[in-house]
Amino acid sequence: MQLPGSKSLVSDLPEFAADILARLRARSPRVHCITNAVAQNFTANALLAVGAVPSMTVAPDEIAEFVARADALLVNLGTLDRERREAAEVAIEEATDERRPWVLDPVFVDRSQQRTAFAKALVGKKPWAVRLNGAEFSALADTAPMDDALRRYALHQLGVLALTGATDVVTDGSRIVKIKNGDPLMSRVTAMGCAGAAVLAACLAVEGDAWVATAAGLLLFAVAGECAAQRARGPGSLAVEILDALHGLDREILRTRARVD
Amino acid sequence: MQLPGSKSLVSDLPEFAADILARLRARSPRVHCITNAVAQNFTANALLAVGAVPSMTVAPDEIAEFVARADALLVNLGTLDRERREAAEVAIEEATDERRPWVLDPVFVDRSQQRTAFAKALVGKKPWAVRLNGAEFSALADTAPMDDALRRYALHQLGVLALTGATDVVTDGSRIVKIKNGDPLMSRVTAMGCAGAAVLAACLAVEGDAWVATAAGLLLFAVAGECAAQRARGPGSLAVEILDALHGLDREILRTRARVD
Amino acid sequence: MQLPGSKSLVSDLPEFAADILARLRARSPRVHCITNAVAQNFTANALLAVGAVPSMTVAPDEIAEFVARADALLVNLGTLDRERREAAEVAIEEATDERRPWVLDPVFVDRSQQRTAFAKALVGKKPWAVRLNGAEFSALADTAPMDDALRRYALHQLGVLALTGATDVVTDGSRIVKIKNGDPLMSRVTAMGCAGAAVLAACLAVEGDAWVATAAGLLLFAVAGECAAQRARGPGSLAVEILDALHGLDREILRTRARVD
Repeated sequence: MQLPGSKSLVSDLPEFAADILARLRARSPRVHCITNAVAQNFTANALLAVGAVPSMTVAPDEIAEFVARADALLVNLGTLDRERREAAEVAIEEATDERRPWVLDPVFVDRSQQRTAFAKALVGKKPWAVRLNGAEFSALADTAPMDDALRRYALHQLGVLALTGATDVVTDGSRIVKIKNGDPLMSRVTAMGCAGAAVLAACLAVEGDAWVATAAGLLLFAVAGECAAQRARGPGSLAVEILDALHGLDREILRTRARVD
Repeated sequence: MQLPGSKSLVSDLPEFAADILARLRARSPRVHCITNAVAQNFTANALLAVGAVPSMTVAPDEIAEFVARADALLVNLGTLDRERREAAEVAIEEATDERRPWVLDPVFVDRSQQRTAFAKALVGKKPWAVRLNGAEFSALADTAPMDDALRRYALHQLGVLALTGATDVVTDGSRIVKIKNGDPLMSRVTAMGCAGAAVLAACLAVEGDAWVATAAGLLLFAVAGECAAQRARGPGSLAVEILDALHGLDREILRTRARVD
Repeated sequence: MQLPGSKSLVSDLPEFAADILARLRARSPRVHCITNAVAQNFTANALLAVGAVPSMTVAPDEIAEFVARADALLVNLGTLDRERREAAEVAIEEATDERRPWVLDPVFVDRSQQRTAFAKALVGKKPWAVRLNGAEFSALADTAPMDDALRRYALHQLGVLALTGATDVVTDGSRIVKIKNGDPLMSRVTAMGCAGAAVLAACLAVEGDAWVATAAGLLLFAVAGECAAQRARGPGSLAVEILDALHGLDREILRTRARVD
């Protein structure tokens, strides 16, 4: 039997990702997204492109019903108004009660102290996965985003940590994988990270191993971004092409393109 | 004289739609949209592409002034926060006072009981047209979306019912038309139905027969979607192509493409 | 020494714009945008395409922190809900305290009296630049948008006035320039003016002469729009192409394309 985090598990990631993609298309899980106003449309379209179904209301008095029947929940802090704050708390309670997987995306947590405090409180509610970049990790964990710190944070918080950047790193404390796909032009399009986090929430809905689901979600998105960048002439066409690429992804593309270790 | 709903009226629909399109471009009616956050940008662009002018504020204390000078109103329940609920009531009262056509799009009315109750109350205010899918119809009318049930519901509510899906059905109780245009890929792009409902609201602004206006609006959108799907490589490019196709629609395309009966 | 507004300053505008573009790409200024829900995504993408970094929260209780560390502020009145109104006041106070450049875009100020009053109050807080169209200028200044009225208004308000339309006019009261780039199809895409105002706010972050920065910002956007229109097949592809064109702009394109006098 392979140990978790063993070489073969990492090298099998493209196959796992292809399996998960097939399940997304077969089951069409619904992902409820509390996400920022800038990202809502692109996030909904990314979910649809990968085979999932989005719902996006942030009204606190109807969100519990939406979350109760959803297959996963995404909480993104990008534009953190009062209504979204209130909705997030109701939604997370509902997801916890119903044992639905949920993902925290603490966007810009490094930009405001109030946001840092709110994000730390949400981490305390045990998200299945947290997606953030290096600066956001530093603000949340009060330490630099080195591999050991990531592992310790994931272990301590009992969830999966997904650090995105030129290389993505996904760890649950014991297992760790680095994903080298993607393209620098992706950073010139807004809401790319937000949409990627929604895709990984969809993967959590159809795969019980949260580390595999998270890594697969980031791999699907990064490979699609790389395919898209080859066709794009700039950031405008990249945003269009990545939706087409997510829709057109298949096992062969994942096998050929994936660069993980 | 032809009876309403007679064969010739249905077969003339492509010509009526072309006439209405010409009026949209000549008169540029303004459509005020209370619509969900996911759909706002795409809806505004769909209206502009077809020749109309969007306005989109949902602030309750200025919406009456916006609606009073608009040519039609769309009320979409997609992300139903407190402000939008309050705005909808003010806007519908203003539209009714000013005898402006208004359209109800009860998105996701099947997902939350509170939403069902709110939507039923709005139907009681007599929208000129209601657009929904089969699941939404069932939640609103407490019956399956069969032709007879649609006719009865339209008659009872004294408005036009537009059921969208693989085939769109438009009835005012006596007349009924089925529109078979469109493409399955359209269901993989968010806000398509929302934008289609805005286009039919624009048609109501320039055509006094609400059944003809509603059917023409859905036909314009479905034919544009079909043209777009032929050029698109996936859902990302479909969203772009449909705006180009709406802008490029003409009588010849409508005559050649329309599949109605 | 050249007088301000002299012929050579106007004819040098393409070179100044290219210098400013180089600074945007080198320094990546952050522009905080309080903008309408329809424009948020496209505005963020326009800023990224030109080399700047957007932040978009409108939550009143965290906006001061966001603005304090931003390099410029945009206040757009497009969807003027209570939260945005409150956020605008806090943000402008912070920008004024920190001497950050800020731009007012009084969208649809001609459509509601409450909006006119609010916009006039904000003009009293001395924005570095105001961008508007002819109808909006008339509502705000109670006079028609003739060159002399524009000059007087700019002088009286001690800022730069940017009137956009088929020809853009930028004046600080003494200097005046007319920019004839752009394409009529741009008016068939929502949020074009909003995104253009965000780009000029970015220019104010890297250029101390507000009149030069404003004129350069509008020139960059109009030239990109013109390049985009040559490739676009309609308004959908225009929105995509303009982001690609902003990203691909260079000194040579600006020199060749600019039509200013």
